[in-house]
Amino acid sequence: MIDVAILGATGAVGQRFIQLLQAHPWFRVAEVVASERSSGKHYAEAVRWVLDGEIPPTVAELVVLELTDSLASPIVFSALPAQAALEIEARLAAEGHFVFSNASAYRMAPDVPLLLPEVNAEHLRLVGRQQAERGWKGGLVTNSNCTAAPVVMALAPLRHLVPQRLHVVSMQAVSGAGYPGVPSLDILDNVIPYIGGEEEKLAEEPRKMLGTYQDGEILPLEMTISASCNRVPVVDSHLVSIAMNFQNPVGLESVQAAWEHFEAPANVRTLPSAPNPVLVVTDAPDRPQPRRDRLTGGGMATVIGRLRAAAALDGIQFMALTHNTIRGAAGCSILNAELLVSEGYLSGTKAPSAIAVR
Amino acid sequence: MIDVAILGATGAVGQRFIQLLQAHPWFRVAEVVASERSSGKHYAEAVRWVLDGEIPPTVAELVVLELTDSLASPIVFSALPAQAALEIEARLAAEGHFVFSNASAYRMAPDVPLLLPEVNAEHLRLVGRQQAERGWKGGLVTNSNCTAAPVVMALAPLRHLVPQRLHVVSMQAVSGAGYPGVPSLDILDNVIPYIGGEEEKLAEEPRKMLGTYQDGEILPLEMTISASCNRVPVVDSHLVSIAMNFQNPVGLESVQAAWEHFEAPANVRTLPSAPNPVLVVTDAPDRPQPRRDRLTGGGMATVIGRLRAAAALDGIQFMALTHNTIRGAAGCSILNAELLVSEGYLSGTKAPSAIAVR
Amino acid sequence: MIDVAILGATGAVGQRFIQLLQAHPWFRVAEVVASERSSGKHYAEAVRWVLDGEIPPTVAELVVLELTDSLASPIVFSALPAQAALEIEARLAAEGHFVFSNASAYRMAPDVPLLLPEVNAEHLRLVGRQQAERGWKGGLVTNSNCTAAPVVMALAPLRHLVPQRLHVVSMQAVSGAGYPGVPSLDILDNVIPYIGGEEEKLAEEPRKMLGTYQDGEILPLEMTISASCNRVPVVDSHLVSIAMNFQNPVGLESVQAAWEHFEAPANVRTLPSAPNPVLVVTDAPDRPQPRRDRLTGGGMATVIGRLRAAAALDGIQFMALTHNTIRGAAGCSILNAELLVSEGYLSGTKAPSAIAVR
Amino acid sequence: MIDVAILGATGAVGQRFIQLLQAHPWFRVAEVVASERSSGKHYAEAVRWVLDGEIPPTVAELVVLELTDSLASPIVFSALPAQAALEIEARLAAEGHFVFSNASAYRMAPDVPLLLPEVNAEHLRLVGRQQAERGWKGGLVTNSNCTAAPVVMALAPLRHLVPQRLHVVSMQAVSGAGYPGVPSLDILDNVIPYIGGEEEKLAEEPRKMLGTYQDGEILPLEMTISASCNRVPVVDSHLVSIAMNFQNPVGLESVQAAWEHFEAPANVRTLPSAPNPVLVVTDAPDRPQPRRDRLTGGGMATVIGRLRAAAALDGIQFMALTHNTIRGAAGCSILNAELLVSEGYLSGTKAPSAIAVR
Repeated sequence: MIDVAILGATGAVGQRFIQLLQAHPWFRVAEVVASERSSGKHYAEAVRWVLDGEIPPTVAELVVLELTDSLASPIVFSALPAQAALEIEARLAAEGHFVFSNASAYRMAPDVPLLLPEVNAEHLRLVGRQQAERGWKGGLVTNSNCTAAPVVMALAPLRHLVPQRLHVVSMQAVSGAGYPGVPSLDILDNVIPYIGGEEEKLAEEPRKMLGTYQDGEILPLEMTISASCNRVPVVDSHLVSIAMNFQNPVGLESVQAAWEHFEAPANVRTLPSAPNPVLVVTDAPDRPQPRRDRLTGGGMATVIGRLRAAAALDGIQFMALTHNTIRGAAGCSILNAELLVSEGYLSGTKAPSAIAVR
Repeated sequence: MIDVAILGATGAVGQRFIQLLQAHPWFRVAEVVASERSSGKHYAEAVRWVLDGEIPPTVAELVVLELTDSLASPIVFSALPAQAALEIEARLAAEGHFVFSNASAYRMAPDVPLLLPEVNAEHLRLVGRQQAERGWKGGLVTNSNCTAAPVVMALAPLRHLVPQRLHVVSMQAVSGAGYPGVPSLDILDNVIPYIGGEEEKLAEEPRKMLGTYQDGEILPLEMTISASCNRVPVVDSHLVSIAMNFQNPVGLESVQAAWEHFEAPANVRTLPSAPNPVLVVTDAPDRPQPRRDRLTGGGMATVIGRLRAAAALDGIQFMALTHNTIRGAAGCSILNAELLVSEGYLSGTKAPSAIAVR
Repeated sequence: MIDVAILGATGAVGQRFIQLLQAHPWFRVAEVVASERSSGKHYAEAVRWVLDGEIPPTVAELVVLELTDSLASPIVFSALPAQAALEIEARLAAEGHFVFSNASAYRMAPDVPLLLPEVNAEHLRLVGRQQAERGWKGGLVTNSNCTAAPVVMALAPLRHLVPQRLHVVSMQAVSGAGYPGVPSLDILDNVIPYIGGEEEKLAEEPRKMLGTYQDGEILPLEMTISASCNRVPVVDSHLVSIAMNFQNPVGLESVQAAWEHFEAPANVRTLPSAPNPVLVVTDAPDRPQPRRDRLTGGGMATVIGRLRAAAALDGIQFMALTHNTIRGAAGCSILNAELLVSEGYLSGTKAPSAIAVR
Repeated sequence: MIDVAILGATGAVGQRFIQLLQAHPWFRVAEVVASERSSGKHYAEAVRWVLDGEIPPTVAELVVLELTDSLASPIVFSALPAQAALEIEARLAAEGHFVFSNASAYRMAPDVPLLLPEVNAEHLRLVGRQQAERGWKGGLVTNSNCTAAPVVMALAPLRHLVPQRLHVVSMQAVSGAGYPGVPSLDILDNVIPYIGGEEEKLAEEPRKMLGTYQDGEILPLEMTISASCNRVPVVDSHLVSIAMNFQNPVGLESVQAAWEHFEAPANVRTLPSAPNPVLVVTDAPDRPQPRRDRLTGGGMATVIGRLRAAAALDGIQFMALTHNTIRGAAGCSILNAELLVSEGYLSGTKAPSAIAVR
């Protein structure tokens, strides 16, 4: 078993890490780290547990560490806010830890992978560049904004059709805002048509994630994205309505076939947290739905439906759904760590820059 | 006071008619009509009242008539389903009643106005064609699908900018499906990304409503519309996210100015149910919101916000909101009837075809 | 017009005061007071408006004062938290202001009225004792916990039947917790069976409110109350299920008749905010309901229904509903102030201790 | 594997049976039975699946049988409405099937067990009486109203303290009303303080379930129960607030200890669907909560919390929660069937009347 630390362990995403790692075959939560207010207490005392069920008993007993403490775990999962992430994640990577971050701080840094293993496993090679150029002994891997996840997942099998323009309208769950997050007075019997910073991230992150690794650089996919982000009274999972077009006209059957044949590369497919299938294409007329489809593939699959024409874009439209705190956050970080371990980065058995990940 | 009848009086829209007409300065609910199951009972017994507050006492006492009964009221508001509307509304119009219908049955008929008085009051002249060609003594006026209303309202002031392509994603309230309508098991903690027939109506109805009356014909506005319709756990009012472009590039300020200067024609502005202003443009970053904005202008105004660029369409995007059972249904029918009365159709003082409504 | 100040003007109850006073025939919001963070700004900048609709324009322009500032308004409405209320409300009352408070700080003080004008208007005389014993030039009047309001309202007409034991289970709206208040992650698709301090207040406050004024003292009603308080996913208004018994067996008809004949004393009935009737007894099998009944009597009435036997208490049970931020908070304070003004306290035309309020 | 049939297989409880039996170690869904409208279709076509996830593939392929068809499965789970249950369940029991019913039709019949295996396993002996007196070759076992389940579970360990009076106020999930069930227009932002027939069942069923089997009779527990039942906007699981007293004063510690030491009889404890522990007593101040606690013990455990005094009853009060469609319906029926099988009723290896179940 490999020891892991959780940064920001008392927050909503931190809790999700702990819940998902409860029975993990490779990783064991050995250290929980939170702000000064919590440090020194037992985790069970420090946390206001907001997920279903109980705190895993082995974690409940851990004493919460401070963010300035040295850590012993080789792998660190970070659920820190962007500001705190900036300094702490870099320090830990420099010291030799492999940090898997949900924060937006480093996502667009040219030498930091924005990793979704089924889609861009080869971007992991950027860790070699981090070690070479920054002198880090470890490395830093980020995962995408939770709303970018379903967009990228749905687009990945369509890259060969040359996507050009994409307009996405999201209906996002309240858990995406953390805890306490969205006040109930704002969202009961209501929709909030604004989520700060989200639309900007959606315009950028998918292009990097769908980009090509070449000589230590990610060449972003050439496409134009605009977004309209909405908060809806749903607990978990983000639903997106995507309208898009391609360089040349594309039939609905080609799209459908591309999704149905999509699978993760062989070195990803067998990872413990990899969903199989990666994409579930439903032919029900009224799916995907957040409550009914969010736990598909243990919350790691993306469910797609309602493929049809979008006249205004001379293209197609469809709905896609992913669980925002599993696939869109903690679960994706764990899968990222699994890939890094399976590729030998941790043991140092391979030079990162030499790894052929696809 | 002018007597009015309500067809489908026990349904959700029928109830909204009765509620809105409670203190109307011109109209008095004199007849309530429903299916056989209800007829012969007092309205209070026959109805399962689902709106806030109590049944207006004067209506509670009325005996419910059958759909086959003759009616005495010159004005008839119809909340019938499309199938029933087809035969009954035509019969009543032929007999001399002026029928204001929420049903989709006749909306796209070439001689039937799809009327939104602030936008296309002159379409009312089609009633003259109905009388001439169909031999009806009365007439039939429809109002739009409840989700088309915010689209048309937001577009009306922009016609001179020559809109070309429009993609709309809706988040619609459960009251749009009537009663019992959407089961709570389907919508609590959920979104349903499908509403039967709605996307097709959105592709057609706005073009007719924004079209030009010319020699007894409506020339539809040339533009391409696509839609993605979603049901959300909200009681009342439909929120739409609209992305669109124009023949030539248009600055955000031109759009903003066009909205702010928009007003209804003079003969509409003074009608009892006309909102003033027609459009409320908010500069709050997170509005319009269904619960907080739906009763703006007594539920008859359209609230618009979040105007910004939409890169994927080389155009603009924004949010618009209208109350679906007031502006999008009963309230709009009442305003339509007010226009017809004020234009002299009822009294026969003017020949309909001669009326200059703008 | 009498100038009034609002303490805690930016919070949820403070906003409700401003909304309700918008068109008040006697009172004009002249001063808005909030914490240091807001002071010096225009109200529209300082507040995050969470109610429906817009900020009343005349208030939007006011500059927010600090809690330590001197106030010019003779009447002060306080939406302060208990801790802040303790010192500030006493200071203002000493200086000559009449303070109407929603805080719990002084509710159980023996010389402070816990006022519900329809029920215990004569408790207002305690203001005379405050002036005599504390040397205050003004006075302090509190209103009850928002969940005590429906209990007291339903009990008031039943005092002659000698109530003995009462068990109340509440289902309370999220607005009772203020803003940001209850996190949506806690309450969507959920019930929280605990509200801090609420059950203790329910065991005490109704006894004082239903008590008898005698020689400057309130003799509390002798009865035993227990409570179980729950938060439910409802925006506004608290619903309570009450089971109770009496000294001697009481028929359901006697209870029903007592409710139906209940009215406020003559000096209360004509106040601008007094609902008429005070109690609305519904015979619908499934009412009162929060969303459908909360605005009865402008949110100032109490709606009662489902009267039936409660075998476990050898007594009766029923449901009662009041709007928690109108009747249970801001609206009740305003009615309290109206009573004080109409009784001549403000003008000093009568010695408070001499006023016969019933 | 033992073949089982599901009656009313397309309804909400029928679906829950199919979902729970998906990976059952003893039972295999071999027959699905529904109304005429569905019969002859494949199950996947006939059903509108309302639960999370997908229809189990092996069941999706089954052809739906009619209610009048002969069945081959020895065990029949019934999710029929009361009226249909009356005739069909008796016929199947007479023919030799063992029927496990969620309907209320036979619950109070003196020779029909109202079975909760952890509490009253010995009531199963009534099946012997059915065979002897009614001449049935099989038998009929019912389970309780879904709101009675948490009441009985919490009371079972307290029988030795001699409960006397119990008042229960429920907050029930919408799934308890089946599908389509509660219209969303009735329950969003609302509570419905009425559920037809529920309060009457709660006054009766717990007394039978907690009663003593003696010579082929169930002697009901002597106690007085009253109830107030409410529907809240929660998807699954019923929360009850219980206030009660005992013949003699009882300390809170005695109650707490009785709950903590409670376990099912040995012959029940090892059944595949038996939760362990049966009762989970939480010391969190604000639990149990429907969303966070409903899946405790796979939805088969009862979660209890907030034990404290209830002055109005000179007794105690607390909250209890069970999953209404698992423990309160399908899951309980399955556990009941497991008990019957493990006791040898099916194989005929023991004479039912001779079985010592505790």
